Amino acid sequence: MDERTARMCLAAVVEPGHPAVAEAVASYGAEQVWSGLVRPGSALPLSVRARALSPEDLRRRTSAERLRFAIPGDPDWPHGLADLVGCEPVNQLSGEPLGLWLGGGGDLGELAASAVAVVGSRASTAYGDTVAAELAAELSESGRTVLSGGAYGIDAAAHRGCLAGRTPTIAVLAGGLDQPYPSGHRPLFDRIAERGLLVSELAPGEHPTRVRFLARNRLIAAITPGTVLVEAAARSGARNTVTWANVLGRIVMAVPGPVTSATSVTPHRLIREAEAILVARAGDVLELLSPLGRANPRPPGERRATDSLSADELRLFESVPGRGSITAGDLALRAGLAIPTCLALLDELAERGFLVQNVLGQWQLSPRPGQRAR
Amino acid sequence: MDERTARMCLAAVVEPGHPAVAEAVASYGAEQVWSGLVRPGSALPLSVRARALSPEDLRRRTSAERLRFAIPGDPDWPHGLADLVGCEPVNQLSGEPLGLWLGGGGDLGELAASAVAVVGSRASTAYGDTVAAELAAELSESGRTVLSGGAYGIDAAAHRGCLAGRTPTIAVLAGGLDQPYPSGHRPLFDRIAERGLLVSELAPGEHPTRVRFLARNRLIAAITPGTVLVEAAARSGARNTVTWANVLGRIVMAVPGPVTSATSVTPHRLIREAEAILVARAGDVLELLSPLGRANPRPPGERRATDSLSADELRLFESVPGRGSITAGDLALRAGLAIPTCLALLDELAERGFLVQNVLGQWQLSPRPGQRAR
Repeated sequence: MDERTARMCLAAVVEPGHPAVAEAVASYGAEQVWSGLVRPGSALPLSVRARALSPEDLRRRTSAERLRFAIPGDPDWPHGLADLVGCEPVNQLSGEPLGLWLGGGGDLGELAASAVAVVGSRASTAYGDTVAAELAAELSESGRTVLSGGAYGIDAAAHRGCLAGRTPTIAVLAGGLDQPYPSGHRPLFDRIAERGLLVSELAPGEHPTRVRFLARNRLIAAITPGTVLVEAAARSGARNTVTWANVLGRIVMAVPGPVTSATSVTPHRLIREAEAILVARAGDVLELLSPLGRANPRPPGERRATDSLSADELRLFESVPGRGSITAGDLALRAGLAIPTCLALLDELAERGFLVQNVLGQWQLSPRPGQRAR
Repeated sequence: MDERTARMCLAAVVEPGHPAVAEAVASYGAEQVWSGLVRPGSALPLSVRARALSPEDLRRRTSAERLRFAIPGDPDWPHGLADLVGCEPVNQLSGEPLGLWLGGGGDLGELAASAVAVVGSRASTAYGDTVAAELAAELSESGRTVLSGGAYGIDAAAHRGCLAGRTPTIAVLAGGLDQPYPSGHRPLFDRIAERGLLVSELAPGEHPTRVRFLARNRLIAAITPGTVLVEAAARSGARNTVTWANVLGRIVMAVPGPVTSATSVTPHRLIREAEAILVARAGDVLELLSPLGRANPRPPGERRATDSLSADELRLFESVPGRGSITAGDLALRAGLAIPTCLALLDELAERGFLVQNVLGQWQLSPRPGQRAR
């Protein structure tokens, strides 16, 4: 039996995120662990399950469902998953997957490099769905792949937003890929598989369980360099993905919302406690994920033209009437400045385009204050 | 002429936040600076204005308007204002006020000690107004005084929320207290003065100007230990109060809102760039302002009971059917665990109140999972 088949068989009988098995495979190789397991006589429940498995059936089922089984070392294996080796466990789960069943046409390794995870509550609000979909669409327009968990609510909005863009999207599921969950998302998963990818650590035929959702969350966090949490109530499962992303040193982002909304409680708490960085738009996400860090300039129009004025200059500028004109002497009086100071400041304000002098030598506001005189 | 009258006269002719005059007063005393100014012969505009002022008229007008003039060293002078001495200027403004005109019955020093500034955009949304009013009401119920700038929008909502509570509120204005601005807030200012205070650095008769608003903002930030920004668009004046609060080392807080709202752009940017801490409710503000720091425990119900379970325990717990009961042997099989392990974990889960054993020795879910068995 080859390494790939041995890993596939192991993955089919071992619960995901089981550190002991991952360590044994790392030390002895999958073939040896598998042959140990199937040796007759062992009463270990895992051995019992292993002996009941037909590798040939599993292989046939995998290809019948048009799936492939990727393993560490494959060219399309995402680099990020290696960070799960020896990382701090969450809910006693850890470890790199033994392999992944993949459905669809995309190259996981290539897509993962540019991926952003967008996750959140199943019980999302219209606000959350809109924000997730628009964020995903804009990230997609910027060439990013959006990865999520395929669930109702924020996950679905994120996948759909990305599908409306120009990049493939990736759904990482907690059950076998022939058992789409939730089943109402079967059409969505079909669309995702057309250009993107369906990913699972679970063998065909397996159903999701709570533990499997938790183990799946570690993959979402590990595959992507950054995770955005859009909406999550105080006790949402999406919080767990954020925990994984922080454990793995990923960039954790959260979208704020109305403080009156229960589904923004977790994003707000994460931001408040510095476990996540606030992101309000796709540009914020791109800036944080950019290898150059905060390279983008601030949006224009941030500063008022008059912000550059000293208090005396501002006082003088404000003493100029909104309509009509005024002499330098009257201006000095109004502004409470000595005439020579006033004249010097007037020249400066004219030079900087705030004021203009009319043909009578009187001063008035520039039609475009703060635009340097030509 | 006494120190108080000299400061009152100086305050009436000098623009607020003028560092040169504040320094001269600190070095030579107000009386000496004033007598220097009014000496005949000087053509300085400030001297001209000083000589035109009648101290008696000013005193009369102050008392006719039922105002008093407080100066540094008075028992009700807020300690925080001393931090303005020698602090980094903003818009070239700085310095402790020469004095403050006060209207109303409250004790400024006492109220300032428990005050929180709640400020924001004049062009606020219904969301912002509601949040500001509720925040102010809750802070008031907790014994905090809410201080703001008396403007339309967030400021007014904050004052009104506090008036609905049980503490006085303070409005710091940018013009003379006999010239209520905006004039539509005259009834609001009357209500504020009944139990709380109107405060201004400007003499009766003076109107607000842009510079005076900027100078007023430094007082809002300096008087209070913390400032909360509720709503502010990209180019809002409320941003300036936050700058002052940061310069003065105050606690700066901001309330998030929908990312689709233009008036939440500045709060989000401040939070994102760590210039402000996110606050979503009055409890967050109180926690930050508490001298013990984050002393309050997290709200109950934050963690799921099952968060404390190991992966094996969780797997076992999840294998118990939602309704009815199951034998330990069947459970071990379902969960893929050896029988002895399973039995040990079952005892542990029963001890911790997750499972109960029925009279037949079969296992079922506890009616109140996670509550320790008695």
